[in-house]
Amino acid sequence: MQWVKVLGGVVGAAALLGLGIILGHFAIPKGANPPASSASVSQDLDPEILETIMKQLDASRIRENLSRELSREPHLASSPQDEALVQLLLRRWQDPESGLDSAGASAYEVLLSFPSREQPNRVAVVGPTGDIVYSCRQSEENLTGEQGGPDVVPPYAAYAPSGTPQGLLVYANRGSEEDFQELQARGIQLNGTIALTRYGGVGRGAKAVNAAKHQVAGVLVYTDPADINDGQSLPNETFPHSWHLPPSGVERGSYYEYFGDPLTPYLPANPSSFRLDPATVSGFPPIPIQPIGFEDAKVLLCNLQGTSALAAWQGALGCDYKLGPGFKPDGPFAGSQVNMSVHNRLELRNSSNVLGIIRGAVEPDRYVLYGNHRDSWVHGAVDPSSGTAVLLELSRVLGTLLKKGTWRPRRSIMFASWGAEEFGLIGSTEFTEEFFNKLQERTVAYINVDISVFANATLRAQGTPPVQSVIFSAAKQIPAPGPGSLSIYDNWIQYFNRSSPVYGLVPSLGSLGAGSDYAPFIHFLGISSMDIAYTYDRSKTSARIYPTYHTAFDTFGYVDKFVDPGFSSHQAVARTAGNVLLRLSDSLFLPLNVSDYSETLRKFLQAAQQDLGALLEQHSISLGPLVTAVEKFEGAAVALGQHISALQKGTFDPLQVRMLNDQLMLLERAFLNPKAFPEERYYSHVLWAPRTGSVATFPGLANACSRAMNTDPGSAAWAEVQRQLSIVVVALEGAAATLRPVADL
Amino acid sequence: MQWVKVLGGVVGAAALLGLGIILGHFAIPKGANPPASSASVSQDLDPEILETIMKQLDASRIRENLSRELSREPHLASSPQDEALVQLLLRRWQDPESGLDSAGASAYEVLLSFPSREQPNRVAVVGPTGDIVYSCRQSEENLTGEQGGPDVVPPYAAYAPSGTPQGLLVYANRGSEEDFQELQARGIQLNGTIALTRYGGVGRGAKAVNAAKHQVAGVLVYTDPADINDGQSLPNETFPHSWHLPPSGVERGSYYEYFGDPLTPYLPANPSSFRLDPATVSGFPPIPIQPIGFEDAKVLLCNLQGTSALAAWQGALGCDYKLGPGFKPDGPFAGSQVNMSVHNRLELRNSSNVLGIIRGAVEPDRYVLYGNHRDSWVHGAVDPSSGTAVLLELSRVLGTLLKKGTWRPRRSIMFASWGAEEFGLIGSTEFTEEFFNKLQERTVAYINVDISVFANATLRAQGTPPVQSVIFSAAKQIPAPGPGSLSIYDNWIQYFNRSSPVYGLVPSLGSLGAGSDYAPFIHFLGISSMDIAYTYDRSKTSARIYPTYHTAFDTFGYVDKFVDPGFSSHQAVARTAGNVLLRLSDSLFLPLNVSDYSETLRKFLQAAQQDLGALLEQHSISLGPLVTAVEKFEGAAVALGQHISALQKGTFDPLQVRMLNDQLMLLERAFLNPKAFPEERYYSHVLWAPRTGSVATFPGLANACSRAMNTDPGSAAWAEVQRQLSIVVVALEGAAATLRPVADL
Repeated sequence: MQWVKVLGGVVGAAALLGLGIILGHFAIPKGANPPASSASVSQDLDPEILETIMKQLDASRIRENLSRELSREPHLASSPQDEALVQLLLRRWQDPESGLDSAGASAYEVLLSFPSREQPNRVAVVGPTGDIVYSCRQSEENLTGEQGGPDVVPPYAAYAPSGTPQGLLVYANRGSEEDFQELQARGIQLNGTIALTRYGGVGRGAKAVNAAKHQVAGVLVYTDPADINDGQSLPNETFPHSWHLPPSGVERGSYYEYFGDPLTPYLPANPSSFRLDPATVSGFPPIPIQPIGFEDAKVLLCNLQGTSALAAWQGALGCDYKLGPGFKPDGPFAGSQVNMSVHNRLELRNSSNVLGIIRGAVEPDRYVLYGNHRDSWVHGAVDPSSGTAVLLELSRVLGTLLKKGTWRPRRSIMFASWGAEEFGLIGSTEFTEEFFNKLQERTVAYINVDISVFANATLRAQGTPPVQSVIFSAAKQIPAPGPGSLSIYDNWIQYFNRSSPVYGLVPSLGSLGAGSDYAPFIHFLGISSMDIAYTYDRSKTSARIYPTYHTAFDTFGYVDKFVDPGFSSHQAVARTAGNVLLRLSDSLFLPLNVSDYSETLRKFLQAAQQDLGALLEQHSISLGPLVTAVEKFEGAAVALGQHISALQKGTFDPLQVRMLNDQLMLLERAFLNPKAFPEERYYSHVLWAPRTGSVATFPGLANACSRAMNTDPGSAAWAEVQRQLSIVVVALEGAAATLRPVADL
Repeated sequence: MQWVKVLGGVVGAAALLGLGIILGHFAIPKGANPPASSASVSQDLDPEILETIMKQLDASRIRENLSRELSREPHLASSPQDEALVQLLLRRWQDPESGLDSAGASAYEVLLSFPSREQPNRVAVVGPTGDIVYSCRQSEENLTGEQGGPDVVPPYAAYAPSGTPQGLLVYANRGSEEDFQELQARGIQLNGTIALTRYGGVGRGAKAVNAAKHQVAGVLVYTDPADINDGQSLPNETFPHSWHLPPSGVERGSYYEYFGDPLTPYLPANPSSFRLDPATVSGFPPIPIQPIGFEDAKVLLCNLQGTSALAAWQGALGCDYKLGPGFKPDGPFAGSQVNMSVHNRLELRNSSNVLGIIRGAVEPDRYVLYGNHRDSWVHGAVDPSSGTAVLLELSRVLGTLLKKGTWRPRRSIMFASWGAEEFGLIGSTEFTEEFFNKLQERTVAYINVDISVFANATLRAQGTPPVQSVIFSAAKQIPAPGPGSLSIYDNWIQYFNRSSPVYGLVPSLGSLGAGSDYAPFIHFLGISSMDIAYTYDRSKTSARIYPTYHTAFDTFGYVDKFVDPGFSSHQAVARTAGNVLLRLSDSLFLPLNVSDYSETLRKFLQAAQQDLGALLEQHSISLGPLVTAVEKFEGAAVALGQHISALQKGTFDPLQVRMLNDQLMLLERAFLNPKAFPEERYYSHVLWAPRTGSVATFPGLANACSRAMNTDPGSAAWAEVQRQLSIVVVALEGAAATLRPVADL
């Protein structure tokens, strides 16, 4: 054999061996260590799947969900119709073709409040001889054939105590503390009166709390056409002729001050759980309160005597609003009083949550939660069924891909249909109490879509800073409904925007209060949360909310004709929320941009410096430690950003990514301090607790300063300012510590 | 070319290709996806490294650490000598040959209490004319040349208020509430008296609290030879002639009721932190209290008049203990009173923790903490320097392997030298307050080795159930010191054992109170914790603790001559704790056996059923939900055990193991409920909070029942029983939920 041939053979053999090595190395998954499941640990968001999902989310199916199932009948919490929807959800989520991996319902035994069927609540004008001169409606006018029947709960104030107060009527504007002070300053005797108030300004229950402090005996609430109908109030200007609230429409609602089951704070309301004595529960209205329509309010208000109310107190009922007390001597109610008969009853009822789970392929112990409540006051076509219709369509599309074997998310997805939200976020709160640790340790984010479409002008999103970027990414990818070729993002930025020091002009994200089921997730568990909807063009309406909110006129026809004909805004919300959901469940690197918190902290700090700095200095309280803490957070966030970039460019290591994702997921928890606000129930997030102080800064600091303002140096109130400042500093330092390289302290 | 040749060539080529494939596949780490570090994600405990570490842990070096450095000088918290030890630790941990990856000291500004140098505390017998008839020693006798000098802090009761009470002396046994009731029942007038009490029975501070309730004006405390010296009390029977407490020896200690810096509960004591006004702080003794030696106690006690104390109250001072009040009329102190002058001062002082970190190779965000305090009352050769000497030796051995490049743990190891433990676990508590979230999210376990050797008979371990198995594994692997070939485990089981329903006869693990720095980790953060030491043969001594505890006689010579000559018990503790540490830091599967909690829960449940069941039933409180919850936990733990076995047998998946380990690590957190015990500071672990009720069951339930026992049905106390029962049920259900398959609810 010639040496050339040998060489050739050796070279050829080497080449083959090399090829084999290459094939063996790259082409075959490491046989010694294959993942236990068929999923790859590097599984990442698949843009094609995402595109498919976006396409499959179908407006007409959302419409169908709403019309055929969800808003066909009134489904008040714990009613048979509510339970029927539980079964519907289970059927859908257990469907072999389009269902989820598992689904189940679980009931809590919770304290709800209902008007008595036997003794309907009643508001009447009683003449000097005791005869009834005028009676307010006890139910809304049956305008579409859907406002009658035994399942339409009459208007009432849930959790208001029973009672039959009678007294002279006064007009108290929105029932704020300042409003009652104004009346007193004008020399109006409030003792024993009935106060007529309008919705808005302060919370529902607060109207009764404030009134009771001034010895008012009972409170009426109505919705002024100026606040809801852009002034329109005639029958032919209102539903069913337009989207405006009809004269007989009445907003129902919960008047409970806190959220969660009133009898089991911090404990899930299981049948065996310890319950408070209802008689000792705090947070219920102290005096009877009853809502009425503006048709009746007009009769009462336009007959009041006394001096004229301030311009800011005037409304659109077509008369000069006077303050009372009592009716005009020359009118039909001369010498009359208003009598209220409120006969609400507290009842322990079973209310169910429905949970549906898609098991994650790679990290099943990381949960992306997506939820909405199910219960409504009446038909609730907008509230909440517009959201539930979207939820069902989204779960159908995902379930179908799942059952076909086309797709399984990297992380687990949990869909939730909460019970008894209208009574105070009860189902979601009990859920967080039951699974506190598990959820806090494992939940990536909570997405809430309650009312999905208030109106069809623009996206509106609320959330904590880490979710801003993922909502932006989703919104940029989806065309806005309607003519034109704008993305949802480009449309959105025209309606809500702000100038970010980091990004320039961006859509502005609202912050999360306690208006829907995200509240226990963000405030109690510290889980990054968001709420997504389509909403108004604020240049076209000043309505405080969509006009038929919590009335018997919130029906499918209302949505179909006035809110979102064609359901393209519903589809847009389904796509946006679905896109966000997919990005959170499927992205290898969690799309939570924690460094966006730096902007919030800097803004809060600047507000504290500008608006409180001098005052604090007078009391020898330095903001220096807060400045340092904010700087530490900013520095750690920047460094973490560089670490993320390096990881994304470098070779893939499943544990490195998991560790990083844990830092991102858990950052929000670092802002919790359960000792921060001892008088607030559940609120423990030191950045988003309720702020009553006027300075837009850290709420504990703002509130403490506002309380201390007029106290002496060295007072307990000033000590509380220092405590609140320390709480914030420690939280920010602790948060920064979680962002630093993981083996540093 | 012949076809055979071609075939041969093809076969050969195929073989080469195949070989290449095999080589490429198995012999080269996956080049496309290599871990970012050189570490393998499957890195597991290396038995050889463990063996090497066990061998290298050197008794003589531990002895040298103790004699040359740690116990050479008194090192009271925040003293210059304490700060010098901070520097020593930093030097050791930053040593280029044997140091750790990083080390640093951080100081907190904390409230300590010291006796006045200018006005030493004084206890005297004052005759009827006001002349001093007898003075107690103001310092211990200088027996070894180490008990003199300005750095030996005179005996005092830290945090006792200043004052100069004077009154008739009474003997009050151990100063428990029952003891004072007994005196009152005997008709002894306590108002304005000075109560002489002995150590033991109740906590230090409780003696003053109980006394003050009975209008006692001041309290003296001493250590009775019956309680500490097995009755020995003569100078030639005691140190330096034996390990017994000399007559002048006085136990110092903190009399603060809580732990952590008294001015900054729940906040780290940073210089800028909000501080309470010291005048308003609760938990300090309400009246002056001062410890004295039994030499002086004998003079006082043996001269008392009155009736003889009960047999159980008698001690070993060699006289009949009488109750007083006042001295015998026929003795030297006839008509005399006792006068106390206490001049303690509260001072804000800087106290440092030292932290040393070894970065984990694979999961640097998982921490195994190992700590001990550094501060002592005087030389503190046993307390705490015996533990610190072990800590330094262990960190030296690990640091040397690390610096040589031989080893790096899978997870991060954090060594801690805590400051100001003697004043109330201050350094460790402030640390947990500063890094609350980070530690709670990432800490696998906390290992505490405070006093490493009380005596040289046997291992003694305390901990929560998940750490039992890893301590057993370690103890089985290490030979017991002394003659014979028993393992530490086999020796241990002879001294402390119990019959386990699952395992049969096993060594018994004690439960964790609040005696050392593990307290904030287990009670506040819910981190599985343990405390490891060598201790007495209880058949040979009934001393409540080693005799020179907290005295100026706790010196190197004492240890070297009496406690552990040869330091083989110190070495045994270093090996045991080091072995446990390595197993926790390096094992691929975390060696935390969470199913061992089932035994505890079942035991607590049975106690509740047997000892409280009938009583609860009388009040219509059912234990049914608790039974169900325990069963759920047991079921979930068994299923998780099967899952672990399957994972261990199956092919390796790094994320599957991480998910499982997270379940194991975080189980302990599921037992926390910060709302469970509102009147207890830091305690939130529903299984290990302090139990005052007599039934060995869930502490909240036991305590609530014991308080409700004699109240009417329907009382607030009975409501609290129901609340506590619900709290336990919810915790157990929540814990079980975290053990279930991760995508289930």
